[in-house]
Amino acid sequence: MSVAGRMLEAYPKDLGGVDRQKLQECIEACVECAQACTACADACLSEEMVAELATCIRTNLDCADVCDATARVLSRHTGYDANLTRAVLEACAAACKTCGDECTQHAEMHEHCRVCAESCRRCEAACRELLSSLG
Amino acid sequence: MSVAGRMLEAYPKDLGGVDRQKLQECIEACVECAQACTACADACLSEEMVAELATCIRTNLDCADVCDATARVLSRHTGYDANLTRAVLEACAAACKTCGDECTQHAEMHEHCRVCAESCRRCEAACRELLSSLG
Amino acid sequence: MSVAGRMLEAYPKDLGGVDRQKLQECIEACVECAQACTACADACLSEEMVAELATCIRTNLDCADVCDATARVLSRHTGYDANLTRAVLEACAAACKTCGDECTQHAEMHEHCRVCAESCRRCEAACRELLSSLG
Amino acid sequence: MSVAGRMLEAYPKDLGGVDRQKLQECIEACVECAQACTACADACLSEEMVAELATCIRTNLDCADVCDATARVLSRHTGYDANLTRAVLEACAAACKTCGDECTQHAEMHEHCRVCAESCRRCEAACRELLSSLG
Repeated sequence: MSVAGRMLEAYPKDLGGVDRQKLQECIEACVECAQACTACADACLSEEMVAELATCIRTNLDCADVCDATARVLSRHTGYDANLTRAVLEACAAACKTCGDECTQHAEMHEHCRVCAESCRRCEAACRELLSSLG
Repeated sequence: MSVAGRMLEAYPKDLGGVDRQKLQECIEACVECAQACTACADACLSEEMVAELATCIRTNLDCADVCDATARVLSRHTGYDANLTRAVLEACAAACKTCGDECTQHAEMHEHCRVCAESCRRCEAACRELLSSLG
Repeated sequence: MSVAGRMLEAYPKDLGGVDRQKLQECIEACVECAQACTACADACLSEEMVAELATCIRTNLDCADVCDATARVLSRHTGYDANLTRAVLEACAAACKTCGDECTQHAEMHEHCRVCAESCRRCEAACRELLSSLG
Repeated sequence: MSVAGRMLEAYPKDLGGVDRQKLQECIEACVECAQACTACADACLSEEMVAELATCIRTNLDCADVCDATARVLSRHTGYDANLTRAVLEACAAACKTCGDECTQHAEMHEHCRVCAESCRRCEAACRELLSSLG
């Protein structure tokens, strides 16, 4: 089991009715996507055609920051607040959608955009799965 | 003028129709609130009655993370995306509302919660101001 | 291969003489440790004996922040600067050492501290491995 | 007095022998520099000559991340650990030095680099001041 999964199991109190499997998948997807977006922004920066990738870099940076914050909020269970969790997941799904769409446009030309787009899609799906399980 | 204001003035392209004054105020409020929440979580941790402040600490940590991400997203103007900005501002207003309410409950007993609650209120208001100016 | 590994492979330029395997392991260890420390701080916050865990929570929060920043710096290769990489890795190894030592003291009593201590040890080792490979 | 200053005053325990004025200045300089670097990276991204600014953007992003983490570590006083504080301040001074030097090279051409270089210099100086006061 992953460290994120083991930490969820070791939480000393109730998780507040959240689906543990979906929560774990969403935390892992956010953490992976944040790293992929940081790396993709930097890879774009090293491309000859960097000027055409300016929007992609900006979108990558936003997505990395929002995914990082989301992973942190989802890793906390004390005093769980469904409203805040929902608003943060909505923002994260929006960031991943925007970044996934942008990276997809460059996926045929740049492998880093292809890998990053996949991560964004996975993270967006995981956010929406968790959102719908929150009821 | 603040450094945040000077950086907005020095941006080489158009800000995409955003109200510069409201944008600057919101960036500054997010940055201030993130720091206040980080410090308030730590101050709560040092109180004798820390067990009663567990929810306050958690809420502070969430608010710090969401304000940090929001300040970063708002500091970028290249390839501006109103949908993402809106979703992030909604999440930030929600985090500040939750944290401001929680800190207000301890404001009479703990000066750090009183100062932090003020910062949260200011940041929530700045997010809502900017949101409504986005149309 | 992990997403972090695929992103390293997809980087369009030279990695500047860094050992790719050690770099990948260090990025992955930082990302994992940041999440574990965020979760451990929150789990400690939910324990009855939270007052005795105040230093552990603080150390967890520091370690999460330093590991996050380190993962980001290591995920960028454009304009590689060995001096900065070294200073950041030293800070990260120090944060992981402090947090690993602190969590180890509570490892018999709290499973989350045991899992987190393991993550800190792995991350400290990965930072030192990468540091020594930088020559 | 700034919010950072008020939060330091409201801390319920001893600050562990740290010079409060230097600590406040360093927190404020880190927070300001993180925002300036995030904005400068984005402004560089919008310049026609973005390809020539790739190293500057990367350095800005690193400096923002390290300053953010440093501001957070310095905002916590519970269970103060001088070794960790020192290592983090060294990394932050290194990041600010690198970024200040890089931005200075573009300061005549780009106002955002000029403002950002000033912020980096201030933050580097504040880190070194605090470091030397730690003895």
